[in-house]
Amino acid sequence: MSQDATSEGDLRNTGMSLRHDREWDYELERIVEEVEERDASRVGLQFPEGLKRRGPAVADDLRELCDDDVTFMLSGQPCYGACDLDTYLMRRTDVFVHFGHSPMKESDKIIYVPLFSNVDPFPILEDALDELEGDEVGLVTTAQHMNRFEDMCDWLEERGYDVHTRRGDDRLTYEGQVLGCNYASADIDADQVLYVGGGKFHPLGLAMEHPEKNVVIADPVNNVVTIADTRKFMKQRYASVHKAMDAEKWGVIFCTKIGQGRMEIAEKIIEDNPNAYLITMDEVTPDRLRNFAMDAFVNTGCPRITTDDGPRFHKPMLTPQEYRIAVGDEPLDSLEFDTFHGTW
Amino acid sequence: MSQDATSEGDLRNTGMSLRHDREWDYELERIVEEVEERDASRVGLQFPEGLKRRGPAVADDLRELCDDDVTFMLSGQPCYGACDLDTYLMRRTDVFVHFGHSPMKESDKIIYVPLFSNVDPFPILEDALDELEGDEVGLVTTAQHMNRFEDMCDWLEERGYDVHTRRGDDRLTYEGQVLGCNYASADIDADQVLYVGGGKFHPLGLAMEHPEKNVVIADPVNNVVTIADTRKFMKQRYASVHKAMDAEKWGVIFCTKIGQGRMEIAEKIIEDNPNAYLITMDEVTPDRLRNFAMDAFVNTGCPRITTDDGPRFHKPMLTPQEYRIAVGDEPLDSLEFDTFHGTW
Repeated sequence: MSQDATSEGDLRNTGMSLRHDREWDYELERIVEEVEERDASRVGLQFPEGLKRRGPAVADDLRELCDDDVTFMLSGQPCYGACDLDTYLMRRTDVFVHFGHSPMKESDKIIYVPLFSNVDPFPILEDALDELEGDEVGLVTTAQHMNRFEDMCDWLEERGYDVHTRRGDDRLTYEGQVLGCNYASADIDADQVLYVGGGKFHPLGLAMEHPEKNVVIADPVNNVVTIADTRKFMKQRYASVHKAMDAEKWGVIFCTKIGQGRMEIAEKIIEDNPNAYLITMDEVTPDRLRNFAMDAFVNTGCPRITTDDGPRFHKPMLTPQEYRIAVGDEPLDSLEFDTFHGTW
Repeated sequence: MSQDATSEGDLRNTGMSLRHDREWDYELERIVEEVEERDASRVGLQFPEGLKRRGPAVADDLRELCDDDVTFMLSGQPCYGACDLDTYLMRRTDVFVHFGHSPMKESDKIIYVPLFSNVDPFPILEDALDELEGDEVGLVTTAQHMNRFEDMCDWLEERGYDVHTRRGDDRLTYEGQVLGCNYASADIDADQVLYVGGGKFHPLGLAMEHPEKNVVIADPVNNVVTIADTRKFMKQRYASVHKAMDAEKWGVIFCTKIGQGRMEIAEKIIEDNPNAYLITMDEVTPDRLRNFAMDAFVNTGCPRITTDDGPRFHKPMLTPQEYRIAVGDEPLDSLEFDTFHGTW
């Protein structure tokens, strides 16, 4: 594994927060054009958590470029994806700019600024070749690296690989793109998938969703090649399911975030189980759930809250399928990673 | 001060959370009637923080009383007042029940269930008489004790007091009622005010808003009589203002909760100060503000976040008037408690 210091990256393990003060392309001109075209007086700016610090400087630059009577408003709401638009701010501004995520759904009102990474993926791809077996390989990456996706395909093909790619479903913008909750782009006819991107968050989900595939992680940001290992996570999932098997009272969480609602799943549980209670909220946090004297929770919102943050909650929190296993409607060995499809 | 154990109350210092498992009147019949009358299929239930645990049992009782096809949904959002309605749930249910606060504004959609306390206020009123000077006294209380307000007035008058009361403004439902952000009911022509209610939260705000008056606290819940002392709070306020005097970059918080928006104040600051940035959010928490590299914050939302939780934030947080003092627009000795008027 290479540890070349010259290609040190700018994102931490989450793939979100910045290690260095790197330049991003905020596409200010495109924003200013839209502001002028729509004669906007209120403009909303929403950044993901790791980039929120950049907001005021971006607002400064936009103020310079726009008329004095334009008011810029920064969203202070937590934001973890395009599933998580600040709808309050969106409805109350003439132009709403969402930075750092690819569109889950296009809308006239919203300008999506993807913030592509300018890190060079090829040195780490070179290292990753050692971990590939045979010449059939799937290729996936995150929104930040989509601008290099075709180059990466070509690069692999030049080296004799048969590269399998697809566009997953309509929750995804690009061919080869994965989200924390959707790995349909890896439903390809190859036993191994090469994931290019920062951190462990996406490849762990990918490996849980596709347990039959070998997932090779080429991380150009932390400059490291690893193989995704889901054992710790899967053990935690089974432990949570087992703990929840004794539960009598169930809290069924419906998440009110625009792209995280699965009401039909939540209502089905409530209808079938007289000891289940429907609880609605936007941010699903340990503090908020501690308010309810339940024995276990089912989270119909973001699956990554359940799998990644699960141990932080005072009671077991399960995905909808894990709930069905815990109450005996499905066998234990059917356990699968919870994914999210469709837009909002 | 009396410490009679026989009249131990059921509310903690916040006046919100329960010490004993006391019976409340949830007015189930009124709710069922409305559900039937409107042929509702979705009913939202919102409780304040300290009563959220009661939600599932109330939902159980309502399920028993209503048709099987009615779905009850519990709000998991934090809730600290009628300023803080769960608008998401309200818009998506046929009947929306808000428990524990008096109406800030009536609406066809909302059933307000006040949850009056059944604690007897007269033993502690008897004790409080020792702290009153002269026979002119103002009387105020919170929504929980409004059902006894007239009785308390009569009781005081029978004992020779000239009781001053008024209904503050349209943010308040009842004569003599105070909120954490509104003490207009204590704008009366007497030098002392008797506050009847649990905890220190309301009387401290009352004493800060009316520093010229002696505020006697008759707490029938914790069974104790005290005199409101704002010195610690006022010292903190002055310290925060002083710290913020050196601030260059200001974050101006606009709270998106239905009854906490003061956009004109927020926009005025932004217009006048090129180093001020408008940040919008619902819950104003230390975590959320840490995302923004500001030197100080102005909170145009709930004043009690500023005064009571201020020290929990990593940078000084000021009320709008304190901001004007910090930037030199008003003299230091003009400092007043920030209050909230109007509805939503």
